[in-house]
Amino acid sequence: MTTLVFGHKSPDTDSTGSPIAWAWYLSEVKNTPAKAVLLGEPNTEAAFMLKHWGLEKPAIIADVTADDKVVIVDTNNPAELPPSINEAKLQAIIDHHMLVGGIKTKTPIDITIRPLACTATIMHDLMGADVAKAPKAIKGAMLTCILSDTLEFRSPTTTPHDRAVAEKLAADLGVNIPEFAAAMFAAKSDVSSFSDAELLRMDSKEYSVAGKELRVSVLETTAPKVVLDRKASLMASMVDVAKEDGADQVLLFVVDILKEEATLLVPNDLVKQMAEASFGAKVSGDTVVLPGIMSRKKQIIPALKL
Amino acid sequence: MTTLVFGHKSPDTDSTGSPIAWAWYLSEVKNTPAKAVLLGEPNTEAAFMLKHWGLEKPAIIADVTADDKVVIVDTNNPAELPPSINEAKLQAIIDHHMLVGGIKTKTPIDITIRPLACTATIMHDLMGADVAKAPKAIKGAMLTCILSDTLEFRSPTTTPHDRAVAEKLAADLGVNIPEFAAAMFAAKSDVSSFSDAELLRMDSKEYSVAGKELRVSVLETTAPKVVLDRKASLMASMVDVAKEDGADQVLLFVVDILKEEATLLVPNDLVKQMAEASFGAKVSGDTVVLPGIMSRKKQIIPALKL
Repeated sequence: MTTLVFGHKSPDTDSTGSPIAWAWYLSEVKNTPAKAVLLGEPNTEAAFMLKHWGLEKPAIIADVTADDKVVIVDTNNPAELPPSINEAKLQAIIDHHMLVGGIKTKTPIDITIRPLACTATIMHDLMGADVAKAPKAIKGAMLTCILSDTLEFRSPTTTPHDRAVAEKLAADLGVNIPEFAAAMFAAKSDVSSFSDAELLRMDSKEYSVAGKELRVSVLETTAPKVVLDRKASLMASMVDVAKEDGADQVLLFVVDILKEEATLLVPNDLVKQMAEASFGAKVSGDTVVLPGIMSRKKQIIPALKL
Repeated sequence: MTTLVFGHKSPDTDSTGSPIAWAWYLSEVKNTPAKAVLLGEPNTEAAFMLKHWGLEKPAIIADVTADDKVVIVDTNNPAELPPSINEAKLQAIIDHHMLVGGIKTKTPIDITIRPLACTATIMHDLMGADVAKAPKAIKGAMLTCILSDTLEFRSPTTTPHDRAVAEKLAADLGVNIPEFAAAMFAAKSDVSSFSDAELLRMDSKEYSVAGKELRVSVLETTAPKVVLDRKASLMASMVDVAKEDGADQVLLFVVDILKEEATLLVPNDLVKQMAEASFGAKVSGDTVVLPGIMSRKKQIIPALKL
């Protein structure tokens, strides 16, 4: 029985590339037949990664069954996983997020969570000397994941170890990091084909803050103007998305990767109050610029209050 | 601020020795001041380990505070941890049990769970080449933990890796494993000073089976007769212990380490039915012998049904 390896819903680069890397390792090094699958369409940067490294797009699955052996990567949150995840035969979890506590296992399994910027960095360590056996495409996928999650080492989630692993992989592959990252970020910034609702849900996590259910969405881009030009319709769409998803409010942070700042859309007084309480910002219009803010995990979530 | 390292309540050898080993590693190798503490009196085998290797008995704590930095080893179950565990500053979890899902963290932390027999084996791997720096007492504690959790490699939880690590440590320390394990098991088997209720709670975990709340207790011994001679008063005590602990029934498995079998006390029809349904045993008196049964984790819990 082939082991299924997958990341979270709305797969970004790490949740697309890391399953591919780990499925290679299980199949080719550990003699455990495995394949990467996705829980939705990969984002535009992840699609760029697949094309650039000549990797096939993994199949998209809607759920797992009690017969499926599965490895979860890049999340441990049941809300971001298939509905029947706790019925499947869980083999391992490899992740770099806080433990949210919803996954249970029936026996002891391999769980590796590390406070690093990227799942692929953890996999690199777990593979040890076997990384050398990886084909170019697998190393390339791992490099792309690290550059994506660290925003080319700009994000405050970046550790020296993430950077060292990425630089080692890039040297090995002959990749010029600034040029390659620029191409990645251009792909990520091409959001023209997405509807407003799709943009609001693309890179989004749910949190409770002061009794409010928030959908905290981030769009990392090198072309914030393209997104901000759509702010009126995005703010209109927030009302419907919140309603459909059972949230009180959608927050959209448009992260300018190059200027290292975020612009928060401010559709109403609730968001205005949150922006002022959380970031000490002075809000006068329907957007507010938050200098230095790039990471939901490190900077936005820990700060959010009312 | 010193990091507190501890295992589960009712500390056995692994939950006493592994915190000591990890506190050494954090303090002496990772320059992170740390100390081992206990959540109760160590059992007689753990006390033997401390004495044999000249280790001080760690202080016993009743709870942790929101200011405490803590590392949890040998469990991930809040029921086996201090009441305020989810308020503390959790730094890491190192464990070899199934994920039960009650621990949450506020940020990503180091979590390492492996399907190995012993926490000390996982620590050995995490320490890597730094194991060589460990003083004799630390290596001795780690060896004792592995021999304890594997019942000198007899338990079906034993993996080839646990065995290899123990044999490496023993060779390094000049320890004759059969002789040393015999002394450990003799210490563990000396239960004369414990009350019936203490024996029933000494190595005990709670499980729900078919709507019944069970306290599943195991006593590993080389002298089962000593325990079985007390069966009448142990069975009488079960009623009170179950009541006090909010359980429907206490199950006591007396594991004969040398004969590699367990004797289950059968105080009533409920336990009789469970023994027959779970282990296909024929029960005629107030005890039943279960050949080959040594591990709660691997053999008892997965089998239990009504």
